[in-house]
Amino acid sequence: MKLQVAIDRVSLDRAIEIARSLDGKVDIIELGTSIVKDYGLEALKQADFHLDSSELLIDLKTIDEGEYEFNKGFETSADILTVMGSSSNGTLKQTYQIAQDVKKDIFIDLMEISDDKLNQMPALPNAIFGLHHSKDSVESFDAVDTIKQFHNEHSQISRLAVAGGIDIEQAKKIAEQGIADIIIVGGKITGTSDPVSAAQKFMEAIK
Amino acid sequence: MKLQVAIDRVSLDRAIEIARSLDGKVDIIELGTSIVKDYGLEALKQADFHLDSSELLIDLKTIDEGEYEFNKGFETSADILTVMGSSSNGTLKQTYQIAQDVKKDIFIDLMEISDDKLNQMPALPNAIFGLHHSKDSVESFDAVDTIKQFHNEHSQISRLAVAGGIDIEQAKKIAEQGIADIIIVGGKITGTSDPVSAAQKFMEAIK
Repeated sequence: MKLQVAIDRVSLDRAIEIARSLDGKVDIIELGTSIVKDYGLEALKQADFHLDSSELLIDLKTIDEGEYEFNKGFETSADILTVMGSSSNGTLKQTYQIAQDVKKDIFIDLMEISDDKLNQMPALPNAIFGLHHSKDSVESFDAVDTIKQFHNEHSQISRLAVAGGIDIEQAKKIAEQGIADIIIVGGKITGTSDPVSAAQKFMEAIK
Repeated sequence: MKLQVAIDRVSLDRAIEIARSLDGKVDIIELGTSIVKDYGLEALKQADFHLDSSELLIDLKTIDEGEYEFNKGFETSADILTVMGSSSNGTLKQTYQIAQDVKKDIFIDLMEISDDKLNQMPALPNAIFGLHHSKDSVESFDAVDTIKQFHNEHSQISRLAVAGGIDIEQAKKIAEQGIADIIIVGGKITGTSDPVSAAQKFMEAIK
């Protein structure tokens, strides 16, 4: 299982600093939507993240204008871009095709998506699907249960990621469960005084 | 009825130039999502749009982290910010409350939203609701019919905007219909060689 670490709500300089410090120490480094909307893709294209071994995910959260946003997004050094599962099938098809064409990855964010919408989605076999609990939701979220239930209902989805308040104990349980490919952790790593040390604890927990 | 003109997929300098040229000549000037994602809110905060009489809408398309994005968004000179109707009720409530607190407007983008989701939405009486046809959708869209049907089913919604390939003839029909408060036009104004002249033709059509 892979660890994806999300960087959010910091200056662009600090984001670059955190990303470099985590390079090679975690599997995927995510620049969160707050970084995209605060600084823009043009700045991310100019910024040199110097990632040698970790993959870079930019959480674009595309919901329309798929072709424009994914072409722009892949002009940065991103290996993975995100699209909302709640966008139109046209947007999903466009973004999937662009990711396939440039041999990079697409991450479909399933936040707030209905079963109807998910069942009407076109087949996107190589996509990563992300179970994602809204940060603004007041409802509770149990990652292990959510993964199990989702997997039972959508066993054809082979690449599964999960995000939403995951701590070390939950990370261990998700790794033991053996279904999810990626766990996403944000503030519990990047919000600590020593993100590298916090990340290493998560990496050990999911081994 | 008001005319909202969307500026998209141009440099920030060109966006400022178009916005200034349309100031006072149209009701609402929109900086589209492409401007936000390409240049970022920090740049939009620094940019001086010099709008004296038109309102400024920034198409943030918030879908999570409502409090963070709306607080950041209203640090710019925006009068109106957008949130996706497909976001969680937590996000909708947070963004609505912030707009109310700062006495500014919230625009809820109904793109790809199911009736179920719309019916489960909390009451947001002062919000502008936007009927919005995905740019990436291959299905056809008749604005007049869509407005009529929506109004029949959701007559409690008093502030209605509509976007999606609207031309001069459709603009006239929507004005005659008398339901929508705002029509949104993009490329058919800003993509012409003389946006001011194109905007004036739309303004005359909806008088």
